[in-house]
Amino acid sequence: MSVIYLDHAASSWPKPPEVLKAMHDCMDQYAANPGRGSHELAVKASRVLFEGRKQLAKLFNIKNPNDIAYAHNTTFALNLAIKGFIKEGDHILCTAVEHNSVRRPLEYLKRTKNVQVTYVKTDEQGRLSLDDVRREITSKTSLIVSTHSSNLLGSIMPIEELGQLCREHHIKLLVDAAQTAGTMEVDVQKLGIHMLAFPGHKGLLGPQGTGGLYIDPEIDLEPLLHGGTGSQSEAAEQPDVRPDRYEAGTQNTVGVAGLVEGVKYIHQQTVEQIHAKEWKLTQRIMNGLMEIDGVTILGPKIGQNKTGIVAFTIHGADSSEVAFILDQSFHIAVRAGFHCTPLAHEMVGTLERGAVRASVGCFTTEQETDQLLYAVREIAKHFK
Amino acid sequence: MSVIYLDHAASSWPKPPEVLKAMHDCMDQYAANPGRGSHELAVKASRVLFEGRKQLAKLFNIKNPNDIAYAHNTTFALNLAIKGFIKEGDHILCTAVEHNSVRRPLEYLKRTKNVQVTYVKTDEQGRLSLDDVRREITSKTSLIVSTHSSNLLGSIMPIEELGQLCREHHIKLLVDAAQTAGTMEVDVQKLGIHMLAFPGHKGLLGPQGTGGLYIDPEIDLEPLLHGGTGSQSEAAEQPDVRPDRYEAGTQNTVGVAGLVEGVKYIHQQTVEQIHAKEWKLTQRIMNGLMEIDGVTILGPKIGQNKTGIVAFTIHGADSSEVAFILDQSFHIAVRAGFHCTPLAHEMVGTLERGAVRASVGCFTTEQETDQLLYAVREIAKHFK
Repeated sequence: MSVIYLDHAASSWPKPPEVLKAMHDCMDQYAANPGRGSHELAVKASRVLFEGRKQLAKLFNIKNPNDIAYAHNTTFALNLAIKGFIKEGDHILCTAVEHNSVRRPLEYLKRTKNVQVTYVKTDEQGRLSLDDVRREITSKTSLIVSTHSSNLLGSIMPIEELGQLCREHHIKLLVDAAQTAGTMEVDVQKLGIHMLAFPGHKGLLGPQGTGGLYIDPEIDLEPLLHGGTGSQSEAAEQPDVRPDRYEAGTQNTVGVAGLVEGVKYIHQQTVEQIHAKEWKLTQRIMNGLMEIDGVTILGPKIGQNKTGIVAFTIHGADSSEVAFILDQSFHIAVRAGFHCTPLAHEMVGTLERGAVRASVGCFTTEQETDQLLYAVREIAKHFK
Repeated sequence: MSVIYLDHAASSWPKPPEVLKAMHDCMDQYAANPGRGSHELAVKASRVLFEGRKQLAKLFNIKNPNDIAYAHNTTFALNLAIKGFIKEGDHILCTAVEHNSVRRPLEYLKRTKNVQVTYVKTDEQGRLSLDDVRREITSKTSLIVSTHSSNLLGSIMPIEELGQLCREHHIKLLVDAAQTAGTMEVDVQKLGIHMLAFPGHKGLLGPQGTGGLYIDPEIDLEPLLHGGTGSQSEAAEQPDVRPDRYEAGTQNTVGVAGLVEGVKYIHQQTVEQIHAKEWKLTQRIMNGLMEIDGVTILGPKIGQNKTGIVAFTIHGADSSEVAFILDQSFHIAVRAGFHCTPLAHEMVGTLERGAVRASVGCFTTEQETDQLLYAVREIAKHFK
């Protein structure tokens, strides 16, 4: 029996066939070191890295592709942005629905750099009030960090308004697009984003081991890695030139080769259509779940904008148990537990038993969502 | 015309077919997020990560596979080791043939943490004198960093003796195995290595985007990345448990799937046989080069132990020009320039024009080395 994969918020799968083909071709034909030699194969590898930057720049409306630094995952991109930007004594504002990839670096800087961090709560549906954010701004606030969409609730943060607020107060805005890159419009110029961290293996349909950070040309970050760049070898310091400054060591050419095809696929389908399709699927799931006794849906109410995530609980059941039964008895893959975002669980009251998170992708079918609903209905009966 | 690839010291190519197949199977069948869910596909992804650790532990004679943290390249592994270990005011000893992936993090710590660094020179053949190292040890010396083999000269550092020296002085030893993992015996227990940084895409025959750091169980490093680990989600701090502590964010499952097959291939062939084969090829190249007027070979003399690297210059020619002609007229891929190791160039007198580096791999043939010799002979005529 084939798997019904509803864990796209963790990693998308399957991928477009072009992604697999491009990776195979890279390994087979030119897996040389990009930027480390001038020979044919190395040049071909370098071209792939540039093609990836170009495709990503087009997707996010970034003027200069070299303002994108590759990262092996979003966590690396966020650590580079947060640790590279924040100075001793700064005050940072972020939402309480941030992932641990934001919270833990910030908590680390609290301990080591005397940084103040304010977590602004959302309401139970995961909606952030701009007034709540504005109220917390101080003269020392240098950065606002916000996820574009809660990885637990699927709710969408008011990034454009945050961008406006940041401009007014000369604060920089770092956005975590882990749940939206490839599935919602992310226009860094329109939204006023100064730094954008994104994964390659989720909505962008590339392989794991890829992702990146867009860095506004006016921001100079302290690099997180120091090392060889294939450029200015004689200097003891990291070169200033982008993207080399933020990309020490050998880059993941084969990963980027796959990512290029993932992003091209999104350009063909368009982000708007992918988002519309995923939203429709979430509404179908939510409508179905609402009819099941004992099921509580977390996050945005039906009809509201959201990403492809539906989080829920079954009364009396531990979320891990529900996920286990879905996997073992119904071959349905979802995620359960705490989703690396404890403060969000605290707000919605699921810190004890966690939540089940079903997340759809651009290849998910209505039939698959119906099978999820059938399975949840069966499971809920047992916990009555 | 097919390419003669002699740039294995930058990235090995081609790879065993099993590597490509494993990567394809991963992308096709289970590219889910390892350690982030309990469903079938996520479990399969987790198993691949563990299998990789097991194969690597066997290769390096590491007791506990969980003492290996994955890294997306050797530079990351070295940054984690260096920045995570060294404390304010420490004194560090390293060789003058270190790659910029060691030198630049150390220079960064000199500027920011009041760290003292002594670069111990080698002789012109790239040989390190243990007495020279011993003489520089002070009461503040906490770490010796040494490459296992110079990435410019192919000379081999006396790691076992350095290990012994470290034990005597209660100093830790960090080894950069960028040029030796998979092509020379690296036994962390026998050699007395406390931390070992290694790439996946060179001698281990895996894809780019992989590599790792072995960390002695008695060493606690400050993590370089803070973020989600799929474990202890509720804690604001990075968990203590290994390998999670050093592996924040989604790992590169598809990359590791390929790496597993690369390492298995090495176990089959045995490191000893690969080393013997590569050594024989370097001797063949060196014997040929010695007969060409105007060519100077850098590094160890013929007959000495070394890795699969032969660096040379042609009198009157810029190294980049030589590499360009090799590529364009003979379809031979080598690397030219400064190889991210400026101090080594200073010692051997090639800081101005760089050096040509031909490096063989386990699939290189004698015929290919002969074609290199033919080409160099032709090129040398022009610069007479």
